[in-house]
Amino acid sequence: VNEHERVEALRRLFGSAAPASPSQHLRVDLGIGDDAALLSLQGAGARIVVTVDEQVEDAHFRLSWLSFEDLGFRSTMAAASDVAAMGGRASACFSSLVVPRSLGDEDLLAIARGQALAASHLGAVVAGGNLARGAALSIGTTVLGSVEGLGLRRDGARPGDALWLAGPVGRAGAGLAMLATQAQGVALEGGAVGAAAQVCLEAWRRPEARQKAGLAAAAGGATALIDISDGLAADAGHVARASGLRLVLEERPLLADATLATVASRIQRSPLGLALGGGEDYALLAATPPGTSLPGFVRIGRCESGAPEVIVERVDGTREPPPLGWDHFR
Amino acid sequence: VNEHERVEALRRLFGSAAPASPSQHLRVDLGIGDDAALLSLQGAGARIVVTVDEQVEDAHFRLSWLSFEDLGFRSTMAAASDVAAMGGRASACFSSLVVPRSLGDEDLLAIARGQALAASHLGAVVAGGNLARGAALSIGTTVLGSVEGLGLRRDGARPGDALWLAGPVGRAGAGLAMLATQAQGVALEGGAVGAAAQVCLEAWRRPEARQKAGLAAAAGGATALIDISDGLAADAGHVARASGLRLVLEERPLLADATLATVASRIQRSPLGLALGGGEDYALLAATPPGTSLPGFVRIGRCESGAPEVIVERVDGTREPPPLGWDHFR
Repeated sequence: VNEHERVEALRRLFGSAAPASPSQHLRVDLGIGDDAALLSLQGAGARIVVTVDEQVEDAHFRLSWLSFEDLGFRSTMAAASDVAAMGGRASACFSSLVVPRSLGDEDLLAIARGQALAASHLGAVVAGGNLARGAALSIGTTVLGSVEGLGLRRDGARPGDALWLAGPVGRAGAGLAMLATQAQGVALEGGAVGAAAQVCLEAWRRPEARQKAGLAAAAGGATALIDISDGLAADAGHVARASGLRLVLEERPLLADATLATVASRIQRSPLGLALGGGEDYALLAATPPGTSLPGFVRIGRCESGAPEVIVERVDGTREPPPLGWDHFR
Repeated sequence: VNEHERVEALRRLFGSAAPASPSQHLRVDLGIGDDAALLSLQGAGARIVVTVDEQVEDAHFRLSWLSFEDLGFRSTMAAASDVAAMGGRASACFSSLVVPRSLGDEDLLAIARGQALAASHLGAVVAGGNLARGAALSIGTTVLGSVEGLGLRRDGARPGDALWLAGPVGRAGAGLAMLATQAQGVALEGGAVGAAAQVCLEAWRRPEARQKAGLAAAAGGATALIDISDGLAADAGHVARASGLRLVLEERPLLADATLATVASRIQRSPLGLALGGGEDYALLAATPPGTSLPGFVRIGRCESGAPEVIVERVDGTREPPPLGWDHFR
């Protein structure tokens, strides 16, 4: 049983729950299965977008990999990215901290500073939370935002649509690879290698939810939108399955990032493998009808009719399946 | 530094974040400091109530104390109680599970069944969530609901107001005391003692958020409302501080619960101590202007002008301070 199957089982179970009663002002329009849930409130034009995310010590991060302020910033942005991926605008963040006794009050405030900073980058505030004791540090984040109409879901892509990417992919994966193999010293080297390595470490430690790009995708007529948290290939697979078509990703634009190429070469990793398999950059992948272009996005492929799958088109025109993605619930 | 001081420090820090921009449809009306946050969505008559809560293994529960279904039920109700405590109606629950490898897929589904059952008792649905690996089991719950107007806060009680309680207090504390001292065998005894002990264990394992009572308090003109999660004395203290007055709790109605008296006597605990200090019954404490009465509530005291404090009035008319409450962040 993998993460996808577990989520499907939960969706079936929760789907059998009682529907909203007529006396309710607040109703669920979209539940489990997309980047975020959508709710509507009687009388309002916009809908509410809601998402929850959790960052757990030793599962998602080690304390030696980043500062407490980084941790607060990154956990807030990781959650807010799901709101951006619906074409929404974040308004309020809620933090649920499980904190071991070894963590001092100054460390707690540093986490909170990172959360407040990330929220302010998004034009949002931290509006509530919870503090509890536990053996390992864990940060749960709920983000509420608003979205026009029904939001940008994963299931709207159509054959012939172009695929677009906002933000580089693979850099955070390269940063994480350095941290996990204790190769972060590369960032202290002089010249282009050290500078590129710093960028990749920062990409993992301080990702930005691409809210402006998501709003641009909504305004620009995108048919589908998703954020890249598990890796481009895996997340493109979610769109392929939900929309029922083949996504063709072109190798050439994915290899255009000199920063990624420099670091990948230094740490002996495949830049294409990092671009396709490395998650946590929180780039956005959009589909648009042919002939549309999206400001802030780079064109990286297209949708074809066919069995739901993701295919990589090499520079020489040959096609091959992408590397396997990341299962956060391994 | 205690939990109250930590929350104050966080409130100051998050209070300095950027306010909502004019382009935002969703705005925060009430942030950190009450049972839940309130947000308003442009054009809507009702407001959105949001709360997050976390139940952590070995901090809030031990796996030997309850079933996985109990755990899902109780964590959902504990969170939903904060929505009830604003006079709101829950609509959507979001679950963030941190799950150790030792927990099987059947156990995970049992937790989810408990969550779905609790949501359905409230007329709500589970609309999303997150699954992550971690060393200890932890359940984060976000509940969204709606409320008319500005909700029932902690700061509206006035001198002369009557105090009302919906639901018994102390039973869950008695149940927890049995579990923590491995005295749950009392529930297997025959007669009134065993039956009362079963009620107290159930009060802790399957609490109900008192949503109907909260709606009745809102409709009945209550001036303040709070749920009893940390113990009646401690939570009454929150109302006393927020409203700037003295709360007088009368011993007589608090000693009227024969179930609590029976169990307290058997496990050699003070029934008044359990009623005042035992948390997690999720009863509701309301204040109303003099002359009002609240259906579903029992009158237990009154508000007086004076320094913010909680005083217990004994049956013989003498007054004394209550026992100290529970700090979840010890």
